[in-house]
Amino acid sequence: MNVTTGRQIVLAARPKGRPQLTDFRLEEVAIAPPASGQVLLGVQYLSLDPYMRGRMDDRESYAKRLRVGDVMVGEVVAQVMASSHPDYSEGDLVLAHAGWRTHALSDGVGLRKIDPSLAPVTTRLGVLGMPGFTAYSGLRVIGKPQPDETVVVAAASGPVGSLVGQLAKIAGARVVGIAGGPRKCAYVKGELGFDAVVDRHKSSFPAELAAACPNGIDVYFENVGGAVWQAVLPLLNKFARVPVSGLIAQYNSVGPDDGMDRLPATMRQILSKSLTLRGFINYDFAEQHYADFLREVGAGIAEGRIRYSEDIVDHLEKAPEAFIGMLDGHNFGKVIVRVAA
Amino acid sequence: MNVTTGRQIVLAARPKGRPQLTDFRLEEVAIAPPASGQVLLGVQYLSLDPYMRGRMDDRESYAKRLRVGDVMVGEVVAQVMASSHPDYSEGDLVLAHAGWRTHALSDGVGLRKIDPSLAPVTTRLGVLGMPGFTAYSGLRVIGKPQPDETVVVAAASGPVGSLVGQLAKIAGARVVGIAGGPRKCAYVKGELGFDAVVDRHKSSFPAELAAACPNGIDVYFENVGGAVWQAVLPLLNKFARVPVSGLIAQYNSVGPDDGMDRLPATMRQILSKSLTLRGFINYDFAEQHYADFLREVGAGIAEGRIRYSEDIVDHLEKAPEAFIGMLDGHNFGKVIVRVAA
Repeated sequence: MNVTTGRQIVLAARPKGRPQLTDFRLEEVAIAPPASGQVLLGVQYLSLDPYMRGRMDDRESYAKRLRVGDVMVGEVVAQVMASSHPDYSEGDLVLAHAGWRTHALSDGVGLRKIDPSLAPVTTRLGVLGMPGFTAYSGLRVIGKPQPDETVVVAAASGPVGSLVGQLAKIAGARVVGIAGGPRKCAYVKGELGFDAVVDRHKSSFPAELAAACPNGIDVYFENVGGAVWQAVLPLLNKFARVPVSGLIAQYNSVGPDDGMDRLPATMRQILSKSLTLRGFINYDFAEQHYADFLREVGAGIAEGRIRYSEDIVDHLEKAPEAFIGMLDGHNFGKVIVRVAA
Repeated sequence: MNVTTGRQIVLAARPKGRPQLTDFRLEEVAIAPPASGQVLLGVQYLSLDPYMRGRMDDRESYAKRLRVGDVMVGEVVAQVMASSHPDYSEGDLVLAHAGWRTHALSDGVGLRKIDPSLAPVTTRLGVLGMPGFTAYSGLRVIGKPQPDETVVVAAASGPVGSLVGQLAKIAGARVVGIAGGPRKCAYVKGELGFDAVVDRHKSSFPAELAAACPNGIDVYFENVGGAVWQAVLPLLNKFARVPVSGLIAQYNSVGPDDGMDRLPATMRQILSKSLTLRGFINYDFAEQHYADFLREVGAGIAEGRIRYSEDIVDHLEKAPEAFIGMLDGHNFGKVIVRVAA
């Protein structure tokens, strides 16, 4: 083993609103050989996900906040470069929560071996990974779309939204996607086969969403919040279900500064329409549903029935820029950093 | 039958915020004898409930809005004064959605005979009626308190809150009530046996609520909204359940005019704590749970294990004043108007 220096990206400063490049810092670090019971991982692919924005803030979330100076968190596909751990051999491919870095030592806790013959390994970070399971479990456990019901999902070209819509179609629902810009909208309708798509960048977005949902909305898979929620809220049908898996529109801002308190209107709709809003983290459903997910979605990918797109960026150094662009909605599909080929 | 004139109270004007006495009007009306298939009802007791405030507004709710000039809606205990209906005889006691009036003709649809030997008939409008079933079904279907969990309910001396707390105690939970003023608080702790009670009128209310919930909150039965929700929100535990049955604090107002949008904070908590907020109307659960409710709560009342209090006001003419007072929190227990003795 002749690698002696790795690189990592740490939180340099807590962002105020939208993160800046200066909120991140690239560091070089010495790599130690694995001690007994450890493996040395060489990271191949790093997943960038909206939840990471929450970890950068100094407030409680569903997970521990980062301290300034900590390596940015994230899931990776990595290869075992050297092993002193009985369960892992050099060359094994694993999923690991290694963070934004080129190399990591691990004691094996939280590692999962992956079989590269099942599907391209990058899918383990997207459609066949955490984002895909978020879509699958939120729909299976909370959304429960019935045939001919209307399901709406935002960020519809993204890794969660694109699978939400495709699974809801398979369940027999009418599916309306929300996406930003004509290129994403064309993909959602043309490639993913949603029944309709609405461009949230248009000023007529709320009216167009209403027109695309003539029978109202029975399931709204919430992964954005903000203005999209305001457009969805009046369209929700009695007994509508709202799995809440993300609020990307809120992560960088506190919303429009127009002095309006929007909470009473949302509470009133919850009451008057007997709505269910339920937040969830995919791993809380893993024990019961992960095996089904891998089998069903894995088969769908293998047979070409389930489509996905990936937005792969080269070099760890580009991760901050790609992450900021993703929060701005500039990505097209699942954002992955190729750390080493 | 020698009654020829009845009285009724109609919506005279839509309230702006808190209703005024001038928003109501007393009318005298001629009473016709029952046609074939009809019964003439003499109203004994009229229930006053917070939901009525919503019907006075010109906006969609879970039920039809009133038009100006319509008789105010409401459930009553009535006696059949004359019957041309095969199923009802003079003297029968019934529950009816007759509204704010002394007499009503009915074709029998929606009437339910009641047995006055089971419990005092006024309880059919409170603890053994719609408010009681709201408490029972919201807790049974959505709240699902487990032993040693913490359950919080506001308006804890009221007809819904008082039963929520007592049923949660029976389920083995630790129960914290919120009430307005020392007299109600003393009743909630001393008579109803809640583990703790917090006075929402105190400026230290949020801190006292936090102190009363050292293990956080697992079930918050939401029937008020507004400032109480703001105090509860940071205390909710992961996987907390929030049955939403009413928002009395919102009915008369749009909240503090401080220019803060409180929706993002609530959505963030829903996500980060995997909360479930679910609005409901008690009658959606009636088919599955009403019989159990009558049996369980009826037995609890008969055996003195379940306590309740009623705030009985004499004369239909006093209904508007009593209703406004109830929205202001001046009632003590279930508000009932004795229309005729």
